Amino acid sequence: MGKGEHTRTQIIEHAITLARTVGLEGVSLGALAESAGLSKSGLFAHFKSKKALQVDVVEAAAEFFSAVVVRPALRQPRGESRLRALFDNYLRWIGSGAPSGCIFMSLNHEFDDRPGPVRDRLLQSQKDWRNTIKTVAQHACEAGYFHSDTDCDQFAFEFMGVSMAYDYTLKMLQNPQAESITIKAYDALLQRCVMPPDQV
Amino acid sequence: MGKGEHTRTQIIEHAITLARTVGLEGVSLGALAESAGLSKSGLFAHFKSKKALQVDVVEAAAEFFSAVVVRPALRQPRGESRLRALFDNYLRWIGSGAPSGCIFMSLNHEFDDRPGPVRDRLLQSQKDWRNTIKTVAQHACEAGYFHSDTDCDQFAFEFMGVSMAYDYTLKMLQNPQAESITIKAYDALLQRCVMPPDQV
Repeated sequence: MGKGEHTRTQIIEHAITLARTVGLEGVSLGALAESAGLSKSGLFAHFKSKKALQVDVVEAAAEFFSAVVVRPALRQPRGESRLRALFDNYLRWIGSGAPSGCIFMSLNHEFDDRPGPVRDRLLQSQKDWRNTIKTVAQHACEAGYFHSDTDCDQFAFEFMGVSMAYDYTLKMLQNPQAESITIKAYDALLQRCVMPPDQV
Repeated sequence: MGKGEHTRTQIIEHAITLARTVGLEGVSLGALAESAGLSKSGLFAHFKSKKALQVDVVEAAAEFFSAVVVRPALRQPRGESRLRALFDNYLRWIGSGAPSGCIFMSLNHEFDDRPGPVRDRLLQSQKDWRNTIKTVAQHACEAGYFHSDTDCDQFAFEFMGVSMAYDYTLKMLQNPQAESITIKAYDALLQRCVMPPDQV
């Protein structure tokens, strides 16, 4: 990694950390430049605009998410193992972001009503994630773990619901039972999709 | 309502509208004073500080939530009618906040990692809401609609999960099927809690 690339990566990492607490719009370019040992004009040598920096922050967070949640799960065998890995990795992702939780859930609330390139990039990451969940569920059907008429879009929706309730119960309510309640909810969701024993 | 009280209510209403898009920390006192036809010092005659104003905004939103979601549902008979009213009213509350959705879900993300009086008031509103869902579920058990060993805390958690996934699917993903997917998920949740026919 060249020096320029290294500085760029450093700036993005600082921006992600700041965005977790003050939101992405609240990230001040002055503070960012200072933390990277640059002037504001030095910062703009790396990013054409604040908007471009924000898009790169979402891009970097999506890449990190893929590396720690998605790709390790996809290395598991199709069916139950892959589904459980996807969920376990996602729980850990949300939990490890404490006290701020999942950065995407926060960014979704910040940008859902702000059209523009940041929302566009964020939406893409959300569609990719929803498609990953759906595809992993479809593979569970093909592998005979889920019954064949499982509605995989519906599964992805409910998978997200359980995960969002976890983020909220952990961070906002600070309920020490958050994880066990979440695992029960996820088990109930799987239960509904699993092939009934008399049809195996 | 006296003139002072009227001005105060007006300021809070403007603050709620602004907070929906820019967050509660993003509400500028200058803009608020101007929209109410006051100077900044005039504004401080109504609220001792920005923090006090923010707490009052959460208070007013909680009161409004109670008036349009909770109290009309509590007027329904215990059991299925009350449960369905609670859910229908909540769906409408989330949907009518479009494009910003439920103001509490946004505020939770803004303040979950910011200790202080705003988070405290917000947390109280969230605990009240969670308790309302739990109590309505307990009444459904007593009325014989839910089976008697239903875990009502678990029900409240999953009720919130479905609702959060609705907020997200409607606002961020802008999926036109958001409502029908949500109703299916809620029906599946009810189904799990309803007394099996052979035990009625």
